[in-house]
Amino acid sequence: MKRLELFGLEGIGEVNAGDSIGALICVACARQGIELVVDDVLVVAQKIVSKAEGRMVRLDGVEPSARARQLGQELDKQAELVEVILSESRKVIRTGGRALIVETHHGFVCANAGVDQSNVGLGLVALLPKDADHSAREIRREIQTRTGKTVGVIISDSFGRAWRVGTADVAVGLAGIKPIKDERGLKDRHGYKLKAAVAAIADEIASAAELVMGKRDGVPVVIVRGYEIEKKEDGSVHELLRPEAEDLFR
Amino acid sequence: MKRLELFGLEGIGEVNAGDSIGALICVACARQGIELVVDDVLVVAQKIVSKAEGRMVRLDGVEPSARARQLGQELDKQAELVEVILSESRKVIRTGGRALIVETHHGFVCANAGVDQSNVGLGLVALLPKDADHSAREIRREIQTRTGKTVGVIISDSFGRAWRVGTADVAVGLAGIKPIKDERGLKDRHGYKLKAAVAAIADEIASAAELVMGKRDGVPVVIVRGYEIEKKEDGSVHELLRPEAEDLFR
Repeated sequence: MKRLELFGLEGIGEVNAGDSIGALICVACARQGIELVVDDVLVVAQKIVSKAEGRMVRLDGVEPSARARQLGQELDKQAELVEVILSESRKVIRTGGRALIVETHHGFVCANAGVDQSNVGLGLVALLPKDADHSAREIRREIQTRTGKTVGVIISDSFGRAWRVGTADVAVGLAGIKPIKDERGLKDRHGYKLKAAVAAIADEIASAAELVMGKRDGVPVVIVRGYEIEKKEDGSVHELLRPEAEDLFR
Repeated sequence: MKRLELFGLEGIGEVNAGDSIGALICVACARQGIELVVDDVLVVAQKIVSKAEGRMVRLDGVEPSARARQLGQELDKQAELVEVILSESRKVIRTGGRALIVETHHGFVCANAGVDQSNVGLGLVALLPKDADHSAREIRREIQTRTGKTVGVIISDSFGRAWRVGTADVAVGLAGIKPIKDERGLKDRHGYKLKAAVAAIADEIASAAELVMGKRDGVPVVIVRGYEIEKKEDGSVHELLRPEAEDLFR
């Protein structure tokens, strides 16, 4: 029987700038008696990675530009927050209602450039990691050093979607895995050659992990066990980003 | 420890028009020695629901309109297929490359109105169920009648996304569950009042289940166990569809 198991890693605790997430994971695993296996994929909430990397900004130290003040007024957002969002963005894609949809310097199209006020402390915001593939590789390396196991790592965040209500978690960085499963050209049981069969499995794994993480439960790491993921040493979240020239919605 | 388990239900076999999916699920469960529990959510691939409901069209019986021929030529798609897609749509949202993004009569924004040629037999296409919430309720009722258990049901399909490569499975119909988890207004551990905390958990569950289903593996039903889903008798996929007036991308 095909079977997938996800379990939350508890006891990571508050994460501070300079902490090694890989080390914290190994310690928490040991404390819970969890032995990682080679095919495990660890999903790590972006928030703790950003904290460990010091990607935090105190809003009262931000000087908003005229554009940030203007947008803030239009969108009913704090001007200092808008300033931080704009500094994390290379392009504003859409504004409307209270929404500010941008393309980040990494190439993610998302609300507020992933800048987030929740679970970080009042007056503070967390930015996305500068290079979350790199962050994921560091976590993977530390786990490998400490346990000898070469797991896959996904760093996840909650992104809104076009057309549908609510967020679904996606990968913002990853290491050691191929993020898509491309079955184009293979035939189904009737001999039909598949045309559109590219599954964004790293995003689906991130979404699955969110069910265990929740938003307020303090479970920032989830171990996904039983998925036969394709290993890829130089796997990158950029494989999940549609080039602008092929995108009909920006 | 928070824990989620997904397992594929094997042995459903080929599904034919008139079959009861609920009955097939119960028989397959019994054969595999699986006893459903009340909090289980069953994710059922749209394809078998469409087959059971006879939502199949033979392309060589379709007479394409002039518009379908024109679009077919532009998009390098068979005119008969385009005709079927248009008949399932209330609006064309975007065309470009080989993509035809529409709004279906149900209100889904997706490629090709969900009309699909894979895993159905050569020359045939499967349409989405007419009302997949209704389909899900029927499955739920049949399982309740046969086992006494009131599970949740999600009917899933693979949808492409704006901005990102590949498909992620989402709910196209559901029964017995609340599809979103809305934590807006609750406070995080630091006292910050959450603003954007609406998670599309039915879509995340569908995505998780896709990891077990795969595209070609013939596992059209996945049992998701361990998620404390909020029950809702009149839950509907329409709660997941962003009203056009609030949508920045159509």
